[in-house]
Amino acid sequence: MLAALPLPHPFDSRLGGAVLRRATAHDTDAVITLLSDDPISAARGDVASDGDRDAYASAARQILEDPSNDLLVVELDGDVVGTLQLTSIPGMARRGARRLLVEAVRVRSTLRSSGIGSSVMRWVADEAAPALGATIVQLTSDAARTDAHRFYERLGYAGSHRGFKLTVAPR
Amino acid sequence: MLAALPLPHPFDSRLGGAVLRRATAHDTDAVITLLSDDPISAARGDVASDGDRDAYASAARQILEDPSNDLLVVELDGDVVGTLQLTSIPGMARRGARRLLVEAVRVRSTLRSSGIGSSVMRWVADEAAPALGATIVQLTSDAARTDAHRFYERLGYAGSHRGFKLTVAPR
Repeated sequence: MLAALPLPHPFDSRLGGAVLRRATAHDTDAVITLLSDDPISAARGDVASDGDRDAYASAARQILEDPSNDLLVVELDGDVVGTLQLTSIPGMARRGARRLLVEAVRVRSTLRSSGIGSSVMRWVADEAAPALGATIVQLTSDAARTDAHRFYERLGYAGSHRGFKLTVAPR
Repeated sequence: MLAALPLPHPFDSRLGGAVLRRATAHDTDAVITLLSDDPISAARGDVASDGDRDAYASAARQILEDPSNDLLVVELDGDVVGTLQLTSIPGMARRGARRLLVEAVRVRSTLRSSGIGSSVMRWVADEAAPALGATIVQLTSDAARTDAHRFYERLGYAGSHRGFKLTVAPR
């Protein structure tokens, strides 16, 4: 966990009061469901299969135990309806700037345009990054997610880079 | 530092035997020079200014002290001619896959096409990622670096994502 994050973070959405908080082991199933609630993720294997449950639970544990990483969830009316992962990364480029990497941002598909995603991403830039000493927030988004690209551009992000990925076999 | 990395890694290049090794505090100036030896980085402020030396030295120290990060350099004939940063990141997506993030890859501009970059990137995929338990290697490259994009595609990377960045003011 990133101990310096100002959490929990209550905020208003069009659907009522929500809270952004650190995930616990009890949230693993909800996060798995959010990841599978998306055709692009599902095509990469995130289909909420029972056989993958241990791998996800182990990953959640590793993220929460890691002092450079955190797994967050959004709770609305007692339900987990959103998630994201943050990684704080020291770096040499840009005059030794620390970066805050955002990964696996998901909001329940039936709740899009509720203002939840933009509230969370504003908190990332305005609260989380400064609290961690990061001066760059960065993320990649699948080239097919054109709605998400417009969403990030509205929030001030520059889509200046191309993101490359290579899958490698485990040893 | 990423203790599990199989370093140092000697390799052959078209210019003779080279070695990929972990950076030390003594390599900071050489890394600063490599970062400034690039018009895109220079445009972002990496101009090897004396006034920025302390910030770079502090960043190098933070990377080398961080158990999830490492700063590597390539040495050829006693000269530091290349650098890259690695970050090992646990994750939920893709069934709990660990990712290896590659940042700030630079080879001295006069030594491009020497095979140094491809040897280093092959070591990242074939040796570093498996040693760390990572099954995805990922990086972003400025949209203007079309030569670099072809280089990564030749190595098997898919340019499937768009990379977004937002600069935030320090508190």
